[in-house]
Amino acid sequence: MLDAPSALRSVWLAIHWFDHDLAYMSLIVQKYGGTSVGDPVRIRNVAGRVATTRRDGNDVIVVVSAMGKYTDDLIRLATEVSNDPPAREMDMLLTAGERISMALLAMALSDLGIGAVSLTGSQAGILTDDTHGEARITEIRGTRVKDGLAKQKIVIVAGFQGVDPESKEITTLGRGGSDATAVALAAAHGASVCEIYTDVDGVFTADPRIVAGARKLEEVSFDEMLELAASGSGVLMGRSVEFGRRFNIPIHVRSSFREGEGTWVKEKTMEQAIISGVAHDSSEAKVTVQAVPDQPGVAAALFEPLAEAGVNVDMIVQNVSSDGSTDISFTVPRSHTANAREIAMRVADELGAGGVDVDEAIGKVSLVGAGMKSHPGVAARVFRALADAAINVEMISTSTIRVSCVVRGDKVEDAVRALHDEFEPPMITQEIGADG
Amino acid sequence: MLDAPSALRSVWLAIHWFDHDLAYMSLIVQKYGGTSVGDPVRIRNVAGRVATTRRDGNDVIVVVSAMGKYTDDLIRLATEVSNDPPAREMDMLLTAGERISMALLAMALSDLGIGAVSLTGSQAGILTDDTHGEARITEIRGTRVKDGLAKQKIVIVAGFQGVDPESKEITTLGRGGSDATAVALAAAHGASVCEIYTDVDGVFTADPRIVAGARKLEEVSFDEMLELAASGSGVLMGRSVEFGRRFNIPIHVRSSFREGEGTWVKEKTMEQAIISGVAHDSSEAKVTVQAVPDQPGVAAALFEPLAEAGVNVDMIVQNVSSDGSTDISFTVPRSHTANAREIAMRVADELGAGGVDVDEAIGKVSLVGAGMKSHPGVAARVFRALADAAINVEMISTSTIRVSCVVRGDKVEDAVRALHDEFEPPMITQEIGADG
Repeated sequence: MLDAPSALRSVWLAIHWFDHDLAYMSLIVQKYGGTSVGDPVRIRNVAGRVATTRRDGNDVIVVVSAMGKYTDDLIRLATEVSNDPPAREMDMLLTAGERISMALLAMALSDLGIGAVSLTGSQAGILTDDTHGEARITEIRGTRVKDGLAKQKIVIVAGFQGVDPESKEITTLGRGGSDATAVALAAAHGASVCEIYTDVDGVFTADPRIVAGARKLEEVSFDEMLELAASGSGVLMGRSVEFGRRFNIPIHVRSSFREGEGTWVKEKTMEQAIISGVAHDSSEAKVTVQAVPDQPGVAAALFEPLAEAGVNVDMIVQNVSSDGSTDISFTVPRSHTANAREIAMRVADELGAGGVDVDEAIGKVSLVGAGMKSHPGVAARVFRALADAAINVEMISTSTIRVSCVVRGDKVEDAVRALHDEFEPPMITQEIGADG
Repeated sequence: MLDAPSALRSVWLAIHWFDHDLAYMSLIVQKYGGTSVGDPVRIRNVAGRVATTRRDGNDVIVVVSAMGKYTDDLIRLATEVSNDPPAREMDMLLTAGERISMALLAMALSDLGIGAVSLTGSQAGILTDDTHGEARITEIRGTRVKDGLAKQKIVIVAGFQGVDPESKEITTLGRGGSDATAVALAAAHGASVCEIYTDVDGVFTADPRIVAGARKLEEVSFDEMLELAASGSGVLMGRSVEFGRRFNIPIHVRSSFREGEGTWVKEKTMEQAIISGVAHDSSEAKVTVQAVPDQPGVAAALFEPLAEAGVNVDMIVQNVSSDGSTDISFTVPRSHTANAREIAMRVADELGAGGVDVDEAIGKVSLVGAGMKSHPGVAARVFRALADAAINVEMISTSTIRVSCVVRGDKVEDAVRALHDEFEPPMITQEIGADG
């Protein structure tokens, strides 16, 4: 019988070698955004990076977006032929964008002597529901991807698109769709990591254009990244982070223009941050239904029709005043404002409310950190820091790892700086293995 | 028992009414080229024309090319990322072009209140062999097209593209591929006519930019159109005319910018033309293998390797001289010159021939007319007319309905004018029902 330390050592070695083997033979999914493949020179650069990953001994699946602003160009063409383009045809149109970039990348790889095959979303087995323009991935069938990998080829997959297996119609996944494609493929094919290449160096503690001292995070947990994404951090969309968390695929957000590590988004981070970062979002509007009679069911009467109309409601705040009526405020993306106003006014009428006010001059600032749940008083410090900077807080919403405040739109940058100065994220506390 | 004239009359009426019904419920295939869908305004114009055809009571399948010079733009992008783009990826890239125009046309139709659905070549069941870049259509499977028509929709199909059912790889059909798509769909779905919309008014007796008096042909037979296409008339490619002839689908070549009839390409024309037109082609080069020993098998030794290398040989002329050796001359597209020269030099070496001469400063002028086979002396008049214009004839090739001459490149336009003046096509002779 072995003594315990020796047995542990054997196990450690086995894991070590197994890891090493895995690392050498492992599958890496790399996703390059529109800026990274914005022109032929950049596409050749991406090919060089993929080739290096290949020569390091990895299998590689590459997911690409459309080149630069190409999707915007296609949308503009659509508006020039139609006032209300059918969503089905819009998807047919937009999917041309990734088709172009994926074929060009395959050519550039071929020029480097690296065998590659490009596949549309449909060919790569990205199955979705039938919601044109905002389809959800329902299943990944990987025959052609596996065939390509088995033939020692780099498999390039068009991001942002899939196919509804019932109707055989081509679909697109909506905002952040290419990231979702990449993480879903990584999960389906058992990749060791999903690398998201972008035009910034990683996830920062705040927007570096606003906060000079903003720092790149080395690691951030899935939960924190979800809160950061929901709070306006544009680096990664929430849906891809959700995939990563569900299937435990580490996501490495890094620059396609610079060498060096970016930010790892993982299940368990080595260091537990009290505060990971400050995020902001200036794309929302606040809708207030004034003087609503304070009686059961009024919230449902308002938010049910909004949900049915597909309006994305973010924050909701309700406060009962002493006279028995109440104001209900909520925020929505500004693109949904018109729709939200119309529904709110109809409901206000039915409920006998005072009226509806829409305010587009707002912004939201959020403090995110998994450690704050075990550190009471963070919210209080947030309000104090904003007050000291003479910034009025109009709405408050919190989760266990986030505090969000709605402020005047022209105060957003001041608020971001005030919170970053106060907390100086990442505020690290060593809690490895702790329940946090 | 009916007397003969009355019986004939009944048959005539039945056909008449049957025709009328067919005309009212008939299926029309319309193909719009790159210029016709060159920008959003033109796409809206095309939509208007399709809508009119629809409102006249027809089912419509529309085949579209890529917008304007878009295919050229994509080819340029490819050359910027690769010196030798793989054909498979080239097809993936180029098929994005028709995808964009078909979706935009569907949107424009929707804006006019006309239901439409756009289908890729693959979705429309255009099955091909596996020759990327120059695939041949092998079969049309029409499920989704039929579904669309059954739902009273305009079905828009991407021209120029298909899918190899074995490998499931996307293919393109090469030059004139969209016309071929249109005529093949017309044949497969039993259309009454295939309309080819283009930027000219129809098929002319000669290039109007060269011959001021060139006239639009009202009708031309499949055979003549094939000879015209092979002789350099760029309006219709030969392969689509072959489809039309094989399945007896009338092709109507007409302007997408102007109203009025164009040129009908049909099996039997109402009037038999002696001469239909003068075509010219300035895209070829002449290769001469000099002083070849005059012995059996030398032609095979030369043209077998050329065929294997995919070099498109057009005219071939061989004349034995008195000293027992011979010169063999042939013409090829100038894009094949380098390849042809290399093969010819290798063969010349093997055969102990004198050498190889390549001449790119040539042009070909052809006179085409189904009636010439019953009118002897046409060829002699051709040579006399060219001689009178002081134009030297370097090579001659004839078929039953065509006389072609190779002349100096800078004499091509003179030659076209000389032949048009001499014959003034269309020279019509009434031979309805005759064997000609």
